[in-house]
Amino acid sequence: MPYVNIKITREGATPEQKAELIKGVTDLLKNILGKNPATTVVVIDEVDTDNWGLGGELVTVRCTKGL
Amino acid sequence: MPYVNIKITREGATPEQKAELIKGVTDLLKNILGKNPATTVVVIDEVDTDNWGLGGELVTVRCTKGL
Amino acid sequence: MPYVNIKITREGATPEQKAELIKGVTDLLKNILGKNPATTVVVIDEVDTDNWGLGGELVTVRCTKGL
Amino acid sequence: MPYVNIKITREGATPEQKAELIKGVTDLLKNILGKNPATTVVVIDEVDTDNWGLGGELVTVRCTKGL
Amino acid sequence: MPYVNIKITREGATPEQKAELIKGVTDLLKNILGKNPATTVVVIDEVDTDNWGLGGELVTVRCTKGL
Amino acid sequence: MPYVNIKITREGATPEQKAELIKGVTDLLKNILGKNPATTVVVIDEVDTDNWGLGGELVTVRCTKGL
Repeated sequence: MPYVNIKITREGATPEQKAELIKGVTDLLKNILGKNPATTVVVIDEVDTDNWGLGGELVTVRCTKGL
Repeated sequence: MPYVNIKITREGATPEQKAELIKGVTDLLKNILGKNPATTVVVIDEVDTDNWGLGGELVTVRCTKGL
Repeated sequence: MPYVNIKITREGATPEQKAELIKGVTDLLKNILGKNPATTVVVIDEVDTDNWGLGGELVTVRCTKGL
Repeated sequence: MPYVNIKITREGATPEQKAELIKGVTDLLKNILGKNPATTVVVIDEVDTDNWGLGGELVTVRCTKGL
Repeated sequence: MPYVNIKITREGATPEQKAELIKGVTDLLKNILGKNPATTVVVIDEVDTDNWGLGGELVTVRCTKGL
Repeated sequence: MPYVNIKITREGATPEQKAELIKGVTDLLKNILGKNPATTVVVIDEVDTDNWGLGGELVTVRCTKGL
């Protein structure tokens, strides 16, 4: 019954990519720790780049600098 | 001063239902643990079904399968 | 399949109290939003009072002031 | 490599204010704990006032009461 | 720069298993979404079974019932 | 009534440093966004270096490599 929260910047991840990510993480927990997929919850939070900071700057600003 | 985070799939919970849920959780913390409602914070996050996985699948897909 | 995270200060909550809290929250989600208890996850994090701040102060300090 | 999550009600915080907040928190972690800004992640979640409870009530309702 | 939080019950996961899990999740984010491993943060929280509820019961109790 | 969660590796942060960090973050929220310190909650989670991954590796391992 693991709970996994994945926070990424909102940059166009498709439903197919999110499905692949959820399947992959669930499989890792099953194969490595024997966790039951049926009660493994994975939640993806997509965050605006104005709301995400790295190195003390907004990601929006870093992108304009090509960082 | 408890902090409670409730994550649910975005499936049409009404303001009245959310108010009832917040009141109920706050009362539980007061009655069971003697916590002060005035500083009890409850945050509800509603998550798109494309961003929530259970059993290695998107909830969106599980719903189409009637799961 | 809701996920609920309850953060409280570590002040001696007993297993019985935690069980009552978990049962109560699970029932609220079932009764108000029709959520399935079998996949409702509730996690309680107990935090040291040196690691919890309110009003800009450690709870440890606030307690010595009788706040 | 700290991770900071700031949850606030969605009440019109501007990109400039969020940038100032992210810069300020990153500087605090560098100055107080010597943490490396380059791997300090700060994520701001803005939450609807219908989804935030305090004192057992929705913030939306508290605002109409002038609380 | 994704942030991943994995919450599991405290049931003896070894450093090697945690390393494998962190490596696996980081690779998934790189391969599926092109995320940079250098700024991908993965945090594993291990939670006491007295603090984790499923189906309205403590995991400690469910284990004694063989669930 | 903001809620701030700061996750850092468990590397000996003192109560004084944590108090300074909590005070600083609370002041930032007051000065930048006009938030009320009395209901500003700041929680610091200290995480073992075996439970924190960056660049696909445990921080414990990265430290032995001088990273």
